[in-house]
Amino acid sequence: MSRPIIEPRTLRGFRDTMPEVAVHRTAMLATVERTFGSFGYEPIDTPALEYAEILKGKGGDESDKQMFEFTDQGGRAVAMRFDLTVPLARFVAQHQGRLTFPFRGYHVGHAWRGERPQKGRYREFLQCDADIIGVTGPVADAEMVTVIATTLGALDIGEFTLRVNDRRILNGLLDDLGVSVPHAAVLRALDKLDKIGADGVAAELAGAGVPAGDADRILAFAATGQDDTAATLAALTEELGAASAARPALDELREVFDIVSASGVPRERVHLDPAIARGLDYYTGIVYETSLADAPEVGSISSGGRYDDLAGLYTKTTLPGVGGSIGLTRILAALEDRLAARGRPRALVVIAHPEATGLQALARLAAELRSAGIDVEQYPTARKHKAQMRFADDRGARIMLTLDADGTVLVKDLATGAATAETLETAGAAVRNTLA
Amino acid sequence: MSRPIIEPRTLRGFRDTMPEVAVHRTAMLATVERTFGSFGYEPIDTPALEYAEILKGKGGDESDKQMFEFTDQGGRAVAMRFDLTVPLARFVAQHQGRLTFPFRGYHVGHAWRGERPQKGRYREFLQCDADIIGVTGPVADAEMVTVIATTLGALDIGEFTLRVNDRRILNGLLDDLGVSVPHAAVLRALDKLDKIGADGVAAELAGAGVPAGDADRILAFAATGQDDTAATLAALTEELGAASAARPALDELREVFDIVSASGVPRERVHLDPAIARGLDYYTGIVYETSLADAPEVGSISSGGRYDDLAGLYTKTTLPGVGGSIGLTRILAALEDRLAARGRPRALVVIAHPEATGLQALARLAAELRSAGIDVEQYPTARKHKAQMRFADDRGARIMLTLDADGTVLVKDLATGAATAETLETAGAAVRNTLA
Repeated sequence: MSRPIIEPRTLRGFRDTMPEVAVHRTAMLATVERTFGSFGYEPIDTPALEYAEILKGKGGDESDKQMFEFTDQGGRAVAMRFDLTVPLARFVAQHQGRLTFPFRGYHVGHAWRGERPQKGRYREFLQCDADIIGVTGPVADAEMVTVIATTLGALDIGEFTLRVNDRRILNGLLDDLGVSVPHAAVLRALDKLDKIGADGVAAELAGAGVPAGDADRILAFAATGQDDTAATLAALTEELGAASAARPALDELREVFDIVSASGVPRERVHLDPAIARGLDYYTGIVYETSLADAPEVGSISSGGRYDDLAGLYTKTTLPGVGGSIGLTRILAALEDRLAARGRPRALVVIAHPEATGLQALARLAAELRSAGIDVEQYPTARKHKAQMRFADDRGARIMLTLDADGTVLVKDLATGAATAETLETAGAAVRNTLA
Repeated sequence: MSRPIIEPRTLRGFRDTMPEVAVHRTAMLATVERTFGSFGYEPIDTPALEYAEILKGKGGDESDKQMFEFTDQGGRAVAMRFDLTVPLARFVAQHQGRLTFPFRGYHVGHAWRGERPQKGRYREFLQCDADIIGVTGPVADAEMVTVIATTLGALDIGEFTLRVNDRRILNGLLDDLGVSVPHAAVLRALDKLDKIGADGVAAELAGAGVPAGDADRILAFAATGQDDTAATLAALTEELGAASAARPALDELREVFDIVSASGVPRERVHLDPAIARGLDYYTGIVYETSLADAPEVGSISSGGRYDDLAGLYTKTTLPGVGGSIGLTRILAALEDRLAARGRPRALVVIAHPEATGLQALARLAAELRSAGIDVEQYPTARKHKAQMRFADDRGARIMLTLDADGTVLVKDLATGAATAETLETAGAAVRNTLA
């Protein structure tokens, strides 16, 4: 060919998923959907592209800057969704007459942010969101924490911790202190604690105009978190005092932890952490983040919270919600070497291309085995038997079937090396017995 | 709230998927992935966005015009993929050293085309592609037809017909006729036969410079297709004559049909139709389209073919391939009323919010039932029992559990109206018995 070769490459921050990882991703998605479904959540889907006005100004300045925006062929200002929560709020506002409230929905899909790529952070990421809309209060908040912790527990990803807080506690503390700086700016600064440290947050608070004494109190409060939630609750209760504006939210959070625990979530997986603030502007109540014990460096693998006003951007009906988002792309980034090493989750049979005739008979045998629930590949062209054996090995096949010119079917167990001579009529049963 | 309401709406040609359809879509995706997997195909994934140069000029002028293209924050010319085949070719070229050939991959994902929206055609559509790369010949071609026909057969979508042809047959006929107009232009015209009719195609061929006599022969040839493939094969063989340049391809196609049939695909589901040409420029051999018996108006629900040169755009290695694509968005558009009417595929239990205490005990009961594989929703806030009953009805629940103030748990079968009084200890078993 005389035309020049185009370099095959993906965009910076984007990447392909290879089969040895994708096969586990598919299984994980099925587990997520099954677990969400066991709590009564039903799937929805929304478009990747929305009118830009639907998405802009909803997540904060940073989300706006990172958004993939353009003008389409029809001259419309459009943007790719940067999360699944804002599209859900639009969805619920638009279709409220067709939904049953409280509405439990889940949404699996990609979102896009033009942020700086780093370990576990890509510009395209696959999210699994669950949300319950149309209800406030600790039972719904507890359910969301339970749904997420139960789902992550079902995923076989090692130990993890949900760190839970309530923005109303932080806001109550700021009210107690009489902080006059917009609270959202304080929460955004606090959200960076893991990244920039206490000194960094203190500097940012000073820059925002928070008096040094207040900044110290805020940072001390955020540092109260302990592994034992009961101890944290006791310490925060004492720290705030009975008259604090934060007390009602703190008492509600205590109730949330009790319900989560009764719902079967191990206590060590869910902690109260008063430092958790979340960066997105739309949260109004409970918020949480999740770290993976074996890979804290990939950042939060699941986060979410309550957003009582979000659908109010699109409708006059009050539709408060609470949601959680599992970041499957980050989880895969953390675990992909381990997942790839697990190999094929299902046994595979490879049927060699016949030396002489018999192609149709082998096609019938393959169909019979597939009907019995067995995965079967037919080598699709004439090639030396040795090359076809190597193919079966490379594919991680468990059994290789070879039809000889005399009509014998050799059934070889590639795990043990044992082989039996069968006919076209008996080969199917021999394979099923080997795999049984 | 004083800020103005933003109208909640989706872009023209885009739409949301409602839960009553999405729940079946999820089940259909699982069936597709399981069936593809049973033939040894493994999942891959590629980004929604690619460098524009990767995608442009690959599908033809129309694909280029319909592409969602823009410049990203880093000044790169990028585009949203318009199919899954071109990204697969790029993927295989880029990762060829890490793949085992012949490589069987499948890919489930959205693609985007800014085409005129009409029944079943949206600007965002979900595709399920299977491809086998690194091999030519009738066995691989037959496998692709078999994979697609078997998968569609597993989907419970009513009757369908794959109409199969081979571009080499049409090209051979054009060679026989000595047509000097570029063959791609003739095939593109012929591809519109269903839409614009024989007169329309004749006019387009005349405009392209095809002599009227040749155009008549081409249209007569395309009209040779019959429901019985053996009869079509015989008629085409006679029509072409023994010396035709199209004979080798016709003989190979006969072999394809024999293998497909041996693989268990009912003959009435796969026909030879010499009118099938496909619009995309990259096809080089076998091509097919699929119509749904109950909804021909949505157009082809699955199509594909052989594209021997596609990966050659990105690599000097020869990587011929054959693939098929199931258009799930079109299938859903055709069936959504029927699917929505099917209702919940799994039984649901609704637990009422307790009148007095007992929230944690009910949370434990819910967790117990979920562990037993039962879907359970807890009504998440205090409300009149009648409203909660209506919620359970609207949700299509099978059972409602109500904890009374005296500790009795009423287990009501909403299908029969029968109710039994249980305790918190016996309620779980009562639910399992009702659902057994």
